[in-house]
Amino acid sequence: MARNNTVKADAHAPAVTALLANFAVNHPSRGWDDAVEREAHRTFANWVGCAIGPSHHETVEAALTAVQELQPSAQASLLGRPEKVDIASAALLNGISSHTWDFDDTHLKTIIHPAGPVASAVLALGEHLNIAGRELIDALVIGIEVSCRVGNAIYPDHYDRGWHITGTTGMLGSAAACSRLLGLDAARTQMALGIAASQPIGLREQFGTMTKPFHPGGAARVGLMSALMAKHGYTASQRALEAPRGLLQVFSDKTDWREISEGLGERWEAALNTYKPFACGIVIHPAIDGCVQLRNAHGLKAEDVAKLTVKVHSLVLELTGKKTPTDGLQSKFSVYHSCAVGLIFGQAGEHEYTDEVVNRPDVLALRAKVEAIVDDRIDEAAADLTLHTTDGRELHVFVEHAIGSVEKPMSNAQLRAKFTGQADPVLGADKAALAWALALDIAQQPDLHAFIDAAT
Amino acid sequence: MARNNTVKADAHAPAVTALLANFAVNHPSRGWDDAVEREAHRTFANWVGCAIGPSHHETVEAALTAVQELQPSAQASLLGRPEKVDIASAALLNGISSHTWDFDDTHLKTIIHPAGPVASAVLALGEHLNIAGRELIDALVIGIEVSCRVGNAIYPDHYDRGWHITGTTGMLGSAAACSRLLGLDAARTQMALGIAASQPIGLREQFGTMTKPFHPGGAARVGLMSALMAKHGYTASQRALEAPRGLLQVFSDKTDWREISEGLGERWEAALNTYKPFACGIVIHPAIDGCVQLRNAHGLKAEDVAKLTVKVHSLVLELTGKKTPTDGLQSKFSVYHSCAVGLIFGQAGEHEYTDEVVNRPDVLALRAKVEAIVDDRIDEAAADLTLHTTDGRELHVFVEHAIGSVEKPMSNAQLRAKFTGQADPVLGADKAALAWALALDIAQQPDLHAFIDAAT
Repeated sequence: MARNNTVKADAHAPAVTALLANFAVNHPSRGWDDAVEREAHRTFANWVGCAIGPSHHETVEAALTAVQELQPSAQASLLGRPEKVDIASAALLNGISSHTWDFDDTHLKTIIHPAGPVASAVLALGEHLNIAGRELIDALVIGIEVSCRVGNAIYPDHYDRGWHITGTTGMLGSAAACSRLLGLDAARTQMALGIAASQPIGLREQFGTMTKPFHPGGAARVGLMSALMAKHGYTASQRALEAPRGLLQVFSDKTDWREISEGLGERWEAALNTYKPFACGIVIHPAIDGCVQLRNAHGLKAEDVAKLTVKVHSLVLELTGKKTPTDGLQSKFSVYHSCAVGLIFGQAGEHEYTDEVVNRPDVLALRAKVEAIVDDRIDEAAADLTLHTTDGRELHVFVEHAIGSVEKPMSNAQLRAKFTGQADPVLGADKAALAWALALDIAQQPDLHAFIDAAT
Repeated sequence: MARNNTVKADAHAPAVTALLANFAVNHPSRGWDDAVEREAHRTFANWVGCAIGPSHHETVEAALTAVQELQPSAQASLLGRPEKVDIASAALLNGISSHTWDFDDTHLKTIIHPAGPVASAVLALGEHLNIAGRELIDALVIGIEVSCRVGNAIYPDHYDRGWHITGTTGMLGSAAACSRLLGLDAARTQMALGIAASQPIGLREQFGTMTKPFHPGGAARVGLMSALMAKHGYTASQRALEAPRGLLQVFSDKTDWREISEGLGERWEAALNTYKPFACGIVIHPAIDGCVQLRNAHGLKAEDVAKLTVKVHSLVLELTGKKTPTDGLQSKFSVYHSCAVGLIFGQAGEHEYTDEVVNRPDVLALRAKVEAIVDDRIDEAAADLTLHTTDGRELHVFVEHAIGSVEKPMSNAQLRAKFTGQADPVLGADKAALAWALALDIAQQPDLHAFIDAAT
């Protein structure tokens, strides 16, 4: 009884659970500017491609087979696949698929991958409820806002402690978005957030295993079920997030409550979302970007390259200095392989990191011509490339910010190329093109049927 | 990059994930002494009654209605109810029901309610797999061991921090038990524990809401699904519990690893389980016990009581000093009401804490004759009662340890009376009697059919 039962608790934290619930249900439809609206569509379309690409990966197959042991009803679709499962399982499985290649989106302030937990739940529930595309985008923007603002409040302490912040905030975004789709009032939405608050998902220790992509999928499922339970009168603490023993005080030692409340409904985290152009660690992206630029500007082919010298920050070689990778997974940690495929293919999607490509003779030959030099005057986010051609030219490019950064966002054409690379092998080019067009224009669709037909 | 990314991490923690997985699948069937075997059956039978009693409570109705939105298949039964749902949902719902009245079992070293997360999963999966009763008890003992040993390792720090330890360790016990039932090997069981480790459930902030009983149910569900995913090849960290960013180091600041390993398979936490005899806070139990003793020893009726004086530790009045409760929930925090029903009914089950009983004239009259006096020479776990009868006798009893404590365990007859009080109103007396007899002898049953028929 003498034990200190309330660790570092702030008893006067503002009522953010109620605040977020009220925001989630009462903020007007499309109550944001064109930039947010555009980024929300890009977020959705990028997420769709990332879910379709690995939809037949062993990670998804294993999770689907486990779900099928429950003999689920056929309520909602799986992107890239013919099966239907119940809405909660569809949220789980699409969420797993979309993060399997670690190729999805990033809210750089928090390293949250925001679409996975929210879009997975919204699409599954939305298909079942037969919503309009407008409602999907509204719920997506609101859900991302809830997750990312909670993330802003606890980052970096919470992440440093070892939690995988995508899954430990994502269930709140999913709960908020699903509550909105279900038409819950603010009081029930507050309960949904409260039920979800008891179920944070994800440890960084799982990185490199199938449980990493489980985190956004699990969070999507938790949020959806929390909203359904709240709909039917299930209760939770009204202060589940901010109470001295509420989630945020329990799993983070520092919480900046203003990150949740200030400018809520006025400035938008969804506008800050970014997308990975290359299917590998972000520190190699500037070097690949430079290779693609050189290739395209000068019409280079593999046989034109005599030597490539890449100057990078020491961190790049520390993390990705593998000279002779022998399989796909290893090749993601090789700046040499990455530069070679950038020069040969003009891209570095998941296909360029397969075992087959890693061991292609032309890739092996070009990789051997790449030299990486540490130069700590060069920023981590930059790269300096000098390429000598076999006919004696010296070509140079300095990449200050790689494509895909906030400073140099991917164009829609580039996003589409990324989408095509993932979706074409699964859906075929015609359906993939239709799925892309509908996803990027989803708010104008009267319902989700045409999109889902194209994307499954 | 300069941030301290590994908070207080112990990089040399022993490999407890592998240890527990190996134990869970390789420990022999009934590899323990008679005392453990007996307590395991009492644990199961007590849990069954606790799940049947509130099986039509609004908490269970709300959760079931939400689950039914998924149109689940009819794989497994709900105790006390006619519906069947998929195995994961059955684990969830039976787990919720069994903790709804907060009347279930307690592992006093950790305040874990051990049966809920484990038995709920084992019964649901076991029904589906058509297991023998022997397998059910084996899985229950193993699962409780895993949960409670992990609890021992992190208690009290983890609990003090605000986590509801029943749900934040229970998913591991459930995963271990279900892995055993599924016949997984040690490597896959290690994966099941790892998948479950990313999904701890429960905040103490939820106490007093429906989300408290959600915690054991949710943990049961998580463990079952983690085992199913591992069965189909889903992977997780091999060191998901003990790694520097593994679960135990992330959500507890102090972990005593020896609590997990020492004597594993030799001494058993299931042998230490206790059962609540009264449906109220544990600090009033000695006073109620004294009232029941006086009533039974002297054949007292309400009209025989002139005055009751109860001397208790100050904590008792601090927590349960409500003099004039007006409804059932308030009455659980009233030593006065509790003594009155103990004297009148000889028990204090959920029925004695209903609105109806709280406002009965005889209860109100007797309650007014109860005086509670603080005497801090009396231990928190004790009570000293002096009763004056209307015919001038002075009766006295000193309760050093209340019934239901480790020192004075409930007899099987008392457990049966508790079961009857919960199950008879739901099942009828005949079916309830059969359910009790089969539960208390479940390891001798060739399958679970007869028990399930009686208990639903």
